[in-house]
Amino acid sequence: MICVLCGGVGAARFLSGLVGVVEAAKIVGVVNTGDDTVLHGLTICPDLDTVTYTLAGLVNPETGWGLEGDSFRAMGALERFGGASWFRLGDLDLATHLYRSGRLAEGASLSEVAGEVAAGLGVAVRLLPMSDDPVRTRVRLRGGEEVAFQDYFVRLRHSVEVEAVRFEGVEAARPAPGVLEALESADAVVIAPSNPVVSIGPVLAVPGVSDTLARRRPSVVAVSPIVAGAALKGPADRLMRELGEDPSAVGVARRLAPVCGTLVVDTADVALAGAIEETAVGCVVTDTIMSSPERSQALARRVLEAVPGVG
Amino acid sequence: MICVLCGGVGAARFLSGLVGVVEAAKIVGVVNTGDDTVLHGLTICPDLDTVTYTLAGLVNPETGWGLEGDSFRAMGALERFGGASWFRLGDLDLATHLYRSGRLAEGASLSEVAGEVAAGLGVAVRLLPMSDDPVRTRVRLRGGEEVAFQDYFVRLRHSVEVEAVRFEGVEAARPAPGVLEALESADAVVIAPSNPVVSIGPVLAVPGVSDTLARRRPSVVAVSPIVAGAALKGPADRLMRELGEDPSAVGVARRLAPVCGTLVVDTADVALAGAIEETAVGCVVTDTIMSSPERSQALARRVLEAVPGVG
Repeated sequence: MICVLCGGVGAARFLSGLVGVVEAAKIVGVVNTGDDTVLHGLTICPDLDTVTYTLAGLVNPETGWGLEGDSFRAMGALERFGGASWFRLGDLDLATHLYRSGRLAEGASLSEVAGEVAAGLGVAVRLLPMSDDPVRTRVRLRGGEEVAFQDYFVRLRHSVEVEAVRFEGVEAARPAPGVLEALESADAVVIAPSNPVVSIGPVLAVPGVSDTLARRRPSVVAVSPIVAGAALKGPADRLMRELGEDPSAVGVARRLAPVCGTLVVDTADVALAGAIEETAVGCVVTDTIMSSPERSQALARRVLEAVPGVG
Repeated sequence: MICVLCGGVGAARFLSGLVGVVEAAKIVGVVNTGDDTVLHGLTICPDLDTVTYTLAGLVNPETGWGLEGDSFRAMGALERFGGASWFRLGDLDLATHLYRSGRLAEGASLSEVAGEVAAGLGVAVRLLPMSDDPVRTRVRLRGGEEVAFQDYFVRLRHSVEVEAVRFEGVEAARPAPGVLEALESADAVVIAPSNPVVSIGPVLAVPGVSDTLARRRPSVVAVSPIVAGAALKGPADRLMRELGEDPSAVGVARRLAPVCGTLVVDTADVALAGAIEETAVGCVVTDTIMSSPERSQALARRVLEAVPGVG
């Protein structure tokens, strides 16, 4: 069994490749919920939905999130009331949030609902939220104002300077049922190429997760989401720089060194291999740009090969 | 100023006629909220929305509720998860529930939101929920099972026998801000042709409403929703029979006698005028079938004429 720590789009692409290499039923995704938010009374789980929609083959290929062929009639009508419509919820996508919110109101846990949504869309990978307890990523902007993650990421389009990031509620959050068991019993744990600060950061901050990984560090392998000093998607490079870290695969290695034995970096970063190994993280160099299903599969295969006894 | 006690479709049609006779800004609708429900985490106010959409000229003319030209993509997608989709929420209609639920979560009152929704859709009639506090109509079915109103009305299509109706929470509910003032200061109060049991019943049960009407009973006029022994829409006749009442305009008069001085009945019920006046309610006979805007206006005019000093 392979367990993958997931953020959103990058992790979803990686999982899409992995299901071509490993039977879907033998994959467990542990997904960031720090991005979760409540909008219009509905509980929205952007990373869980991105991963689920992608594995279901339903994701909008142009954005990497949302549903292909979705319409935005509800959002258009919402604007008549001056309702906040900067977080674009498609009409089909709304069904997921309606279902989830209804089930949560009935007393179901987030992990139960995640399983039901995945089953409803025919996804065989087991997708677990990192926690059923609320964890909320909060971003302190330059000047001191603190905003919710989606305010930073979507409303402000992450084009503002960040001073600090914290995960509200994480100290009290328990790993969702099955998370620690999966992290312990997996043949390999993969840290997907997701934003190390705001996607992987919250997962690692859930009590028990980092300790469990540290104990099995040699069979934990990460894929750097930073290639040639730039994030493939989103603000990871900028965030790392603003937080005083090196916005490169070396910075990623330093951040993940306590929990991860090997970092897979792109061929563009071959020159960084030495610096990465100085952080006590093994380095594997390969093509990490998942520009096609074949390339995603090839990356997944190379990642598993990096784990002793698995590849 | 004219104040109208409202349920859903019948009241909405009546108000549509009334705005052709009285300036919209001089009309206050006090609307039943006993039908309200929470579905998929969203607060739904069917009667408020029906009245608002109708006055905005946006209602689906075939059903009398919902929005014209709406689509049901979210509901269709919800079925993939096995989510309850018997209460059909259109994609455009969803925007209203999203906006309302978001505002309520921010701490706004239902009456504030009702005003904002009406303003957003260009409705000049002042629409007030009967109460900002939750009141829930509960229906006891033959055999003893008690269900929520929408379960009875929509899911079971009101084709089940009813033993009793109660309005959960009504004893503690306060009239929404402005309701008693409107009922006191109006030149006339009209009880719209809505279901007397489950639409008008909850409004009259809000503490203070019936007492206020009783004190000004001569200038309170109702329109019978029962014509020739049958409800024009919905289960009013059947409900009255099952609750041991006379399912006719006479039964309506008996029910409303404590708060209402005059009942307007259809020409089909001219033979009932004597029996109605025996209940100590004055009787006006006219054409009450609102089959066109002109007929709705004519009815509104006739209703106001029935109030001493107004018509």
